[in-house]
Amino acid sequence: MSIKTAEIITIGDEIMIGQITDTNTQFLSAELNKLGIQVIRKSSIGDIKSDIINLLNESFSRADLVVTTGGLGPTKDDITKHTICEYFNSKLIIHEPTLERLRLFFEKRGRELSETNKQQAYVPEICQVIENFNGTAPCMWIEKDHKILVCLPGVPYEMKALVLGGVSEKLKHKLSHQKIYHKTILTAGIGESMLSDLIATWEAQLPQHIKLAYLPSYGSVRLRLSAIGSDTTQLELEVTNHFNNVYSLIDEYIVSKQVDTIEEAIGELLLKRGLSITTAESCTGGGIAAQIVSVSGSSQYFKGSVVAYSNEIKIRVLGVEEQTLQKFGAVSEECVMEMAQNLTKFMKSDIGIAVSGIAGPAGGSTEKPVGTIWLACSNGNKTITKRLLGTSIREANIKLATNQALYLAWKFISETNSLQ
Amino acid sequence: MSIKTAEIITIGDEIMIGQITDTNTQFLSAELNKLGIQVIRKSSIGDIKSDIINLLNESFSRADLVVTTGGLGPTKDDITKHTICEYFNSKLIIHEPTLERLRLFFEKRGRELSETNKQQAYVPEICQVIENFNGTAPCMWIEKDHKILVCLPGVPYEMKALVLGGVSEKLKHKLSHQKIYHKTILTAGIGESMLSDLIATWEAQLPQHIKLAYLPSYGSVRLRLSAIGSDTTQLELEVTNHFNNVYSLIDEYIVSKQVDTIEEAIGELLLKRGLSITTAESCTGGGIAAQIVSVSGSSQYFKGSVVAYSNEIKIRVLGVEEQTLQKFGAVSEECVMEMAQNLTKFMKSDIGIAVSGIAGPAGGSTEKPVGTIWLACSNGNKTITKRLLGTSIREANIKLATNQALYLAWKFISETNSLQ
Repeated sequence: MSIKTAEIITIGDEIMIGQITDTNTQFLSAELNKLGIQVIRKSSIGDIKSDIINLLNESFSRADLVVTTGGLGPTKDDITKHTICEYFNSKLIIHEPTLERLRLFFEKRGRELSETNKQQAYVPEICQVIENFNGTAPCMWIEKDHKILVCLPGVPYEMKALVLGGVSEKLKHKLSHQKIYHKTILTAGIGESMLSDLIATWEAQLPQHIKLAYLPSYGSVRLRLSAIGSDTTQLELEVTNHFNNVYSLIDEYIVSKQVDTIEEAIGELLLKRGLSITTAESCTGGGIAAQIVSVSGSSQYFKGSVVAYSNEIKIRVLGVEEQTLQKFGAVSEECVMEMAQNLTKFMKSDIGIAVSGIAGPAGGSTEKPVGTIWLACSNGNKTITKRLLGTSIREANIKLATNQALYLAWKFISETNSLQ
Repeated sequence: MSIKTAEIITIGDEIMIGQITDTNTQFLSAELNKLGIQVIRKSSIGDIKSDIINLLNESFSRADLVVTTGGLGPTKDDITKHTICEYFNSKLIIHEPTLERLRLFFEKRGRELSETNKQQAYVPEICQVIENFNGTAPCMWIEKDHKILVCLPGVPYEMKALVLGGVSEKLKHKLSHQKIYHKTILTAGIGESMLSDLIATWEAQLPQHIKLAYLPSYGSVRLRLSAIGSDTTQLELEVTNHFNNVYSLIDEYIVSKQVDTIEEAIGELLLKRGLSITTAESCTGGGIAAQIVSVSGSSQYFKGSVVAYSNEIKIRVLGVEEQTLQKFGAVSEECVMEMAQNLTKFMKSDIGIAVSGIAGPAGGSTEKPVGTIWLACSNGNKTITKRLLGTSIREANIKLATNQALYLAWKFISETNSLQ
């Protein structure tokens, strides 16, 4: 068996009517990619038997491996397991180790195993079971006609643990010899099209088997090279050489050659310089802090934050002058400067980030429309500021403010040599 | 023309290799659903011309409407526009109003219109243009053989503004008479399968045209009824009657019959009671505050937060006793109790939420493994606490702590009559 290509299928009515965001396929795509398996299509369908069977037929006509998520719950709207049986002409049988595991799972939580939950121990006779230690629905692995079907539960952390704890390892024994190698660099402070103009000549010289992609995201753009070939070491060398030739063209915009996100880039920089950071947030409501904390190990440089959503907290906790608020308003350069400067003192941190803005949809004026955001970054002595103009959409403004504040801090730290 | 069914296509290599989460299709599904258009399949493919053409053929063989996002950028890896031309046997022509808009767009930002950006003004001759006032790539609308293709840019807020500002309105004139009506209630404190056992008899009595779905998410489960028919008023009445019959069976677990999320439910409750709330966060790093702030109008009840990631901030800002940290550790019932109680005083808020836990992957011990989380909620006088045991996955632990903390607060506020 030689698995080169895969398709991912997400099953569930909740996906089709837009009630949940599907984060599973992103994780699965990335994991399959690491193994050198090319994901050629992803599809989502509802809990309808005929649709699932049609899609399985289509996907297997194109790909060697099909991975499904969702539809394995014990409730009536989840029909994947029965459909798989029909598709493979198999029948459901009880899987004793799973039944035992379910008993223990509920015993630990002081509850009895209900009839509905017992259903989770039934699996198609044709499958191998990969046990799910974080939930009730087991993972099913089916091999037939040199192709593989893997059915995973839809709960993100159960699915992830199953992939990292078993599925990836099993897939490694089924791979072909074609390898994919990706490398990404993170840029910021320049738009996709200007970046493209700067590197057009370089881009035109890339060989056929190396592809360039632009991945823009709220003020930053990642450049990714993907190379396909038989030897990973050779591919890595080629990609590195091509990137080496582009660095001098875009040097001032490069944030990191190692990491994918601005919060990781800040972490690297703070660790290297032995500095701590804190945030004072109004319209982002703690989102900047949460993004910093999403990086494992951030406790080494992140001390904490003050979310000053009301003016009262801005004055009483962050020590912003009442006069500043009266004269310039909470969304002003003067206010964020005071917030950032006072924050470094109050929290005793080397770097302070401050944000105040009108996220919307209400609260705007002619002078300060919805989407007006002020950012500041300070080390107590030196303070820099920036004004953003977002859109009318609350969620987009919060995201824009968060990412741009992190970028401002990154720039401030990299450009300020002496911080004392 | 009578549009009943739709398929959504996401185009972009970055989706296929898992470098970004696709949130566009969730938004589009929900919007199409509101119009009564049933989304029957969603697919994602890379920037490969033949794949795009094959998929367009397949999708149009099943659905009346196809909506694509992505692949409209000016850079070389974005090929959707050329492919659409080939598919419809059309050619690219310059769209003068778009060119003019682009000139203004760059002028406002003090930049010149580059050759690469000018490309954005070219569209297939066959299409109608819906102008994009938040970015550079225009939206294209193509009608042919009683079917519709809509091509949207991939940048989420540009796409959303285009749908809300033009596409939805245009689609309203193309609808059939079949309507879909959905209603959801939010439950918490009970798992999917126990809930299913409680309401099994009720569920079995639902008529064919009304479907029940369970939508679980980190400690809460939404129950959704979806009804299909010709008359929305009639469908609404039927769904309301069916829900009325289930309420008494699950009364103690119902959080809201109006809103979809626990943060909205808290907002409703606080507004009604005229109370304010604040948070003191360690392992969630501001995530609880950010979730509260995601609700528009939250400034009416949310005052702010202290993110106390380091012990120093727990002691100095929140006034946690050094002895408490030494004796019980930062992840302890004693610590979160002090955090919550002191918080209400320090921030002068009616309700305070506190969280401290080990998000992982490092930092665990035998006694307190990774995933150990303590929550507290206080009004200054009365304080309740809860211990959670999550998983080994950082992201899942943070999400679990965030949602459960909000649920604990909701429960505390609803059950505590007198808060003084």
